[in-house]
Amino acid sequence: MTSSKMLPPGSTIGILGGGQLGRMLATAAAELGFRCHVYCPDGESPAFDVVAARTTAAYENQSALAAFAGSVDVVTYEFENVPADTAAFLGEQVDVLPNPHALAVSQDRLSEKELMQSLGIPVAPFAQVDDVASLEAALETLGRPSILKTRRFGYDGKGQVAIRAGEDASTAWEAIAGRPAVLEGFVTFAREVSALVVRGRNGETAVYDIVENVHRNHILATSTVPAQLSAATSDAAREIAARVASALDYVGLLAVEMFVVEENGAERLIVNEIAPRVHNSGHWTQDGCIVSQFENHIRAIAGWPLGSTERHSNAVMTNLIGAEADDWAALAAEPGARLHLYGKAESRPGRKMGHVNRISPKVG
Amino acid sequence: MTSSKMLPPGSTIGILGGGQLGRMLATAAAELGFRCHVYCPDGESPAFDVVAARTTAAYENQSALAAFAGSVDVVTYEFENVPADTAAFLGEQVDVLPNPHALAVSQDRLSEKELMQSLGIPVAPFAQVDDVASLEAALETLGRPSILKTRRFGYDGKGQVAIRAGEDASTAWEAIAGRPAVLEGFVTFAREVSALVVRGRNGETAVYDIVENVHRNHILATSTVPAQLSAATSDAAREIAARVASALDYVGLLAVEMFVVEENGAERLIVNEIAPRVHNSGHWTQDGCIVSQFENHIRAIAGWPLGSTERHSNAVMTNLIGAEADDWAALAAEPGARLHLYGKAESRPGRKMGHVNRISPKVG
Repeated sequence: MTSSKMLPPGSTIGILGGGQLGRMLATAAAELGFRCHVYCPDGESPAFDVVAARTTAAYENQSALAAFAGSVDVVTYEFENVPADTAAFLGEQVDVLPNPHALAVSQDRLSEKELMQSLGIPVAPFAQVDDVASLEAALETLGRPSILKTRRFGYDGKGQVAIRAGEDASTAWEAIAGRPAVLEGFVTFAREVSALVVRGRNGETAVYDIVENVHRNHILATSTVPAQLSAATSDAAREIAARVASALDYVGLLAVEMFVVEENGAERLIVNEIAPRVHNSGHWTQDGCIVSQFENHIRAIAGWPLGSTERHSNAVMTNLIGAEADDWAALAAEPGARLHLYGKAESRPGRKMGHVNRISPKVG
Repeated sequence: MTSSKMLPPGSTIGILGGGQLGRMLATAAAELGFRCHVYCPDGESPAFDVVAARTTAAYENQSALAAFAGSVDVVTYEFENVPADTAAFLGEQVDVLPNPHALAVSQDRLSEKELMQSLGIPVAPFAQVDDVASLEAALETLGRPSILKTRRFGYDGKGQVAIRAGEDASTAWEAIAGRPAVLEGFVTFAREVSALVVRGRNGETAVYDIVENVHRNHILATSTVPAQLSAATSDAAREIAARVASALDYVGLLAVEMFVVEENGAERLIVNEIAPRVHNSGHWTQDGCIVSQFENHIRAIAGWPLGSTERHSNAVMTNLIGAEADDWAALAAEPGARLHLYGKAESRPGRKMGHVNRISPKVG
């Protein structure tokens, strides 16, 4: 169920997941006068420090879920691996936004790619893989190198393995533990970009300026706006994102990651994947725009008019991974740099501890 | 005691007072990875919704204060009427910043004016008033109209009364309940401005661009940057604010309210009052600058380097008083307007419920 009313200030936003995205959603919601209730199995969740109410319980705990649903006016989530049953159970009691269908599609690489195909949006060549035989058949078609990715639960490079010339199908199949997968043809791209689109309950959409992303060890390292793109390609990227959001009847902030392929001097976009939530490549909006991706997500799920996605400054967002956040004192002293730290007690290699937005006057 | 160390992320900031200023301090602290503990006698405090820990207790409750002091790494406050004994008691256990001396000076209009005089900073003509006789003597000197103000606990026009031609000293004295007071000569000013200065533990200062303020019914209505001021007067206002902060060995954000008097085409500044805390006339910094007054206050008391006070946009801040906040839906739909609501359950006439920052490109 989804009502079309505007939630008044003082309403309570329920958030599944207590990581940094939940934390930043919660402080954005507080700016609009909302209370937040975070539900997370991890008692040490960073989002717990900035909210009015907390539940520490498993996503399968139906009595805790029922109490949570009864205490909030809308439920959203900060990560795409919310179990489908959890979303469905909550959805019987309260609005869950983005809707569980959008969640289900984006949890499954195969559904995601099939959606893009149905919308005429280019994706890398791919094939469904359910066993070694279908993997071998897919390798015949797509060739090597190609990338085998589990359909579900992949992030930051987890659940995927490259298959290069001379490498064996069964070894790759074992590397992903024989889980349902897709094989993707290798795409030689000039750059990676993302489009952050927000869609309101009334179908209104707005897209932030396209972001250029650099990954390191499969983890996002930097996001830069403006991206180095022709105006036509930027417009195409915005249009693709808005089309995907509309097709999913999506409400909230959706990230669409794309590859930019250069061929004969022309740019072509290929959608890599979508994330049904606020996204690391949108953190620059906190300091480069009046209304951040976090506030716009909250506005959308609360049935409010969307905020402006206009950019007032150029920005480079740099993630602080693991020990990189130990440089907080130097970063705090850097002019034009806005430091964001997530309040995580323990630093671990590969763990996102914070980010810094380096802001400069908008040019052009 | 005041140590000069930088508090690392993960430290806990203690905040006395749970109103909207405490709430906005807390979310700014969270962005830097700090935890917050708010202490307030009012169990319905808006700041309680955005912090990791809360204490609901009277400011005279020494066991609650001791437990609070033991749970935090530094104490600050969001209002200037913190009882001196409370600040002194906490100060034996933990750093209290801004320091209790600065608090004491700004709690007393007489001390405040005497400080300005000692620094050679112009104030309105004034006289100490302790009884009807001294009020009558003061009226002889300063003339009518003039304004009788209690030395302590005045805010938003409370604790003050104008004495006009033909009006009686004893009536005015009764109107302020015979409390220790000052009589101020009437100043005909062209405009009101404020300077927001932040001073670090190492004595470094930075001043935001001067703000022009309009009051309505003694309550701040709007703050506009840039102020209509000559560059020389702006510089003088900044210099005054920095001088006051240094004289008080102040750490944190200090607001200095001034009148601009125009005489023979020249501008002259007169300090009206100071506030030893983040200030309503600095709310525009949330959306007009990379680093807000709230973050800079937290940086200062945490011993961090100050953040940039540079302004990236023009801004007009409008307070939402009482029922004005009922317009939230229209305000949320206004392009270029950033809405901030304080999560107060009950709207009352004169109560500050939120504010809106209208942002436009920086000109000049």
